[in-house]
Amino acid sequence: MSAVDNCVFCKIVKGELPAVKLFEDADALAFMDVFPASVGHALVICRDHHANLLDMPDDGLAATAVVARRIAQAIMTALRPDGFQIRQFNGAAAGQTVFHYHVHIVPVHQGVGAPAHGRERSDPHVLEELAARIRAALA
Amino acid sequence: MSAVDNCVFCKIVKGELPAVKLFEDADALAFMDVFPASVGHALVICRDHHANLLDMPDDGLAATAVVARRIAQAIMTALRPDGFQIRQFNGAAAGQTVFHYHVHIVPVHQGVGAPAHGRERSDPHVLEELAARIRAALA
Ligand SMILES: [Zn+2]
Ligand SMILES: [Zn+2]
Repeated sequence: MSAVDNCVFCKIVKGELPAVKLFEDADALAFMDVFPASVGHALVICRDHHANLLDMPDDGLAATAVVARRIAQAIMTALRPDGFQIRQFNGAAAGQTVFHYHVHIVPVHQGVGAPAHGRERSDPHVLEELAARIRAALA
Repeated sequence: MSAVDNCVFCKIVKGELPAVKLFEDADALAFMDVFPASVGHALVICRDHHANLLDMPDDGLAATAVVARRIAQAIMTALRPDGFQIRQFNGAAAGQTVFHYHVHIVPVHQGVGAPAHGRERSDPHVLEELAARIRAALA
């Protein structure tokens, strides 16, 4: 499905809303989560609008997964967390807040919790500085 | 990488350890989690041994994701949770306990929490009964 009105992620894809981008290709887009669950929390979305995993076509699913792996590697290189979680929520009851398929990459530091969603909006300058380090590791 | 000694999931792939299976194809295998975080918690693994997301080849990643979508759909049909989470842990600090790439499908019911891992081993008969319903929805 192409862009859907009032979908925040479709607006980011179209450039109608800002995002601190990490990477984009023909199928997927990666950017920093503005309510980070931990330092370096990033999102990967497919460009096309699909509400959740059950609606995702095979090619979009593969493309998103490959980009998520690449971004996760760059986060590990740039920020050196102790590990990371991939989280992908389907349905409001499961914690989904934007109904456009997206994959969370949540860096984890030993002994530091990482809630389902961050509670505070991150300073854009902090996100930009983290993104610059992650983009450098991608290059 | 082919089977690794002492890897629990490689042993399940080879049939050396039991599992309550849901589905298998040439690339992936789905079965019930024996320490369920919620009722219906299932796992999807690639047959080949790769420790985590960073080590996964593109084709295995795509195959695992497509099977996860299919199993999630069957769980939604069979068990009617309010939503589900995909969770995939990388590194002990992130909650990974078996170092063979695997994807968690965790059904979520509104108002009922689903911890990172279940604390109690499930009764095999309960798992078998749930699996029978999920397999029926796959068919
Ligand atoms: Zn959208
Ligand atoms: Zn293994």
